[in-house]
Amino acid sequence: MPTLSVFTDVPLAKKLEGSLLKTYKQDDHPNKTFLAYKVCMTSEGQPWVSSVVHKTRMQIAQDPSLNYEYTPVTGMKSFIQASLNLLFGKNSQVIVENRAGGVHTVGDSGAFQLGAQFLKTWRQDSPIVYIISSQKEPHGPIFQDMGFTVYEHTFWDSMQLCLDPNMLLNVVEQAPHGSIFVIGNIGNCTLTQSHWTQLMILMKSKQIFPFFDIPYQGLSTGDLEEDAGFLQHFVSQGFEFFCSQSLSKNFGIYDEGVGILVVVALNNQLLLHVLSQLMNFAQALWLNPPTTGARIITSVLCNPAMQAEWKQSLEGVVENIMMTKEKVKEKLRLLGTPGSWDHITEQKGSHSYLGLNSQQVEYLVRKKHIYIPKNGRINFTCINSYNIDYITKSINEAVLFAKDSEE
Amino acid sequence: MPTLSVFTDVPLAKKLEGSLLKTYKQDDHPNKTFLAYKVCMTSEGQPWVSSVVHKTRMQIAQDPSLNYEYTPVTGMKSFIQASLNLLFGKNSQVIVENRAGGVHTVGDSGAFQLGAQFLKTWRQDSPIVYIISSQKEPHGPIFQDMGFTVYEHTFWDSMQLCLDPNMLLNVVEQAPHGSIFVIGNIGNCTLTQSHWTQLMILMKSKQIFPFFDIPYQGLSTGDLEEDAGFLQHFVSQGFEFFCSQSLSKNFGIYDEGVGILVVVALNNQLLLHVLSQLMNFAQALWLNPPTTGARIITSVLCNPAMQAEWKQSLEGVVENIMMTKEKVKEKLRLLGTPGSWDHITEQKGSHSYLGLNSQQVEYLVRKKHIYIPKNGRINFTCINSYNIDYITKSINEAVLFAKDSEE
Repeated sequence: MPTLSVFTDVPLAKKLEGSLLKTYKQDDHPNKTFLAYKVCMTSEGQPWVSSVVHKTRMQIAQDPSLNYEYTPVTGMKSFIQASLNLLFGKNSQVIVENRAGGVHTVGDSGAFQLGAQFLKTWRQDSPIVYIISSQKEPHGPIFQDMGFTVYEHTFWDSMQLCLDPNMLLNVVEQAPHGSIFVIGNIGNCTLTQSHWTQLMILMKSKQIFPFFDIPYQGLSTGDLEEDAGFLQHFVSQGFEFFCSQSLSKNFGIYDEGVGILVVVALNNQLLLHVLSQLMNFAQALWLNPPTTGARIITSVLCNPAMQAEWKQSLEGVVENIMMTKEKVKEKLRLLGTPGSWDHITEQKGSHSYLGLNSQQVEYLVRKKHIYIPKNGRINFTCINSYNIDYITKSINEAVLFAKDSEE
Repeated sequence: MPTLSVFTDVPLAKKLEGSLLKTYKQDDHPNKTFLAYKVCMTSEGQPWVSSVVHKTRMQIAQDPSLNYEYTPVTGMKSFIQASLNLLFGKNSQVIVENRAGGVHTVGDSGAFQLGAQFLKTWRQDSPIVYIISSQKEPHGPIFQDMGFTVYEHTFWDSMQLCLDPNMLLNVVEQAPHGSIFVIGNIGNCTLTQSHWTQLMILMKSKQIFPFFDIPYQGLSTGDLEEDAGFLQHFVSQGFEFFCSQSLSKNFGIYDEGVGILVVVALNNQLLLHVLSQLMNFAQALWLNPPTTGARIITSVLCNPAMQAEWKQSLEGVVENIMMTKEKVKEKLRLLGTPGSWDHITEQKGSHSYLGLNSQQVEYLVRKKHIYIPKNGRINFTCINSYNIDYITKSINEAVLFAKDSEE
């Protein structure tokens, strides 16, 4: 008699992502192109790695003075301090007053997992999470699985073809008192002083708890300070908040996914209480965070020459992005593609909306084998001298003929 | 008017561990000794690192062919396969029949966190977890926080001074149908064929789900196969189970905490269903596991010369442990310490019970500044030529005078 499996009732789980990449990989069309990689790519189509990383990796491997003991549950202290300085600036109010701290987290989800666990336990009266970003974020399920009600909104106005700060303001206005706001990529969206004032007043009066996402500081404008500058509005207004600071993409150490759950509290004592609770959660999650990524980053951040080289490498990436966007716009102009394509160059960072409608996106995917997400937000670093002509001609075709292709 | 903190109600969390080490560090007695490190120490008092690790780290840093892209959510495939082969043997039934698999996990807790999340969701009728080990394990709180009722039992019989398989059998007998059993260090406990037969029958009839813990394969007997050999009993009896396979301690890459949640199912299809669900949990936990540790381990396991060197390094550690235990026993004999100290050499592995009572332990800590856990289970690799005389003399004193020291 065969034994009954204890796993009999376990169904095959739906994959949460990656189906576009899978279809791309299975496609054998010679011109197939994937424009949805998460990370910055080089002009040779390889994931970008800052030039300082290879050197630092070697130095670390050769360093006889390093020991490889367990790191504390909170992680590498020097890594946390260096990262906080990077995020806020060494002389920032929150650093000087010793009321910003952090826990070393693992992978791209770790900081959200840890933060969500804390909020679930210590803010039980805040069951609603709004995720506001210029793209669909993968954090939704983390909060949902813990019992939060999650609403997602993007800044992108697909009619006006721009990131619209009013969308953020509208959502805050409608949100219940005490909600949690996960805010990603706000730095890509230009808020006027009046927008900021309104936003601060609204969020304060509603006691909204901000949970920021800084996924690639420096890769948006090429300027590290500018990319995280919006945090200063919240610091100066005395907000307490969480921030997921990821440092994998802006160093190019994707396989060492490392980050920090940053905590800003009103004073040092409150901060220590929060960190102590986070430590207990981290202990149950992974106990000790892996250190290679943190070591590489700390070595770079604590060495002025290396840090300068790193900054230069970030600027290089952003210059290339801007150049590619200009070229795409120019090529579309030369092809006589209807519409203004200024919105391409007006957006910051590697990932920007092409501003295509769903028929046009479908045309590109189905007819031209150019794989892009449904919202038309592509990674411009995937465009290079080998594929730019094919891509721009295809966009032109899509704009001209997409409607005709409907069956 | 000062703003009220959103963290006002958050208390300082109780530290879950580390207070013994903290007291040791604050002690300024010249002879202070800490015998409770988690990891194997060298005779110079440094955390042991297998000789192959440094070489491999260098090779990896120099390898121009490596890319540092995101690893898939399940982790490095080659790492998982190599680790499964290590655990079960390449020609094991479960490997050949393609019904053993795993998910690459992070740190010392990751595999338990992931496994517990799965069990909570898919075995809701199994709310009871027994943790059976030769020591108190840190996994209890992970299960407890998820709503499981947790009972902890140790194998150690402090009267008979031995690890007692009957304790395990008794617990199984009393456990409700369908309970989950986290079983650690069972390899350190010698079960006769009759014990095994009884245990298999009992566990099968009660449909108990085993969740094994293999924290340092090879560091118990010095023989990799022997250390994980007990799993074959469960494999041959057609059990389905989870196993936390940690590979940090037996390579000496403590700071790269890496492991695998191993799944054995009745067939490949069931396995794939379980792995797909685990992937979704892993995605929310960390999304992509860091790879340095996995790369080091895979390089060693897939290179026969390196693997041989690694095995030799494990044998070396275990030989040293046995030698230290013999020396301790001999020195206690020469000092005329009352009692037989055979239980020291009869126990396997780095961590073994001294067989002292609580007064004797307290005497060592308070009067002799020798820091050992309350249960008297010490790390024998912390004993070296510099401290062995002080330690054995102190044990002798404790045995002779501990009772008198009571106030």
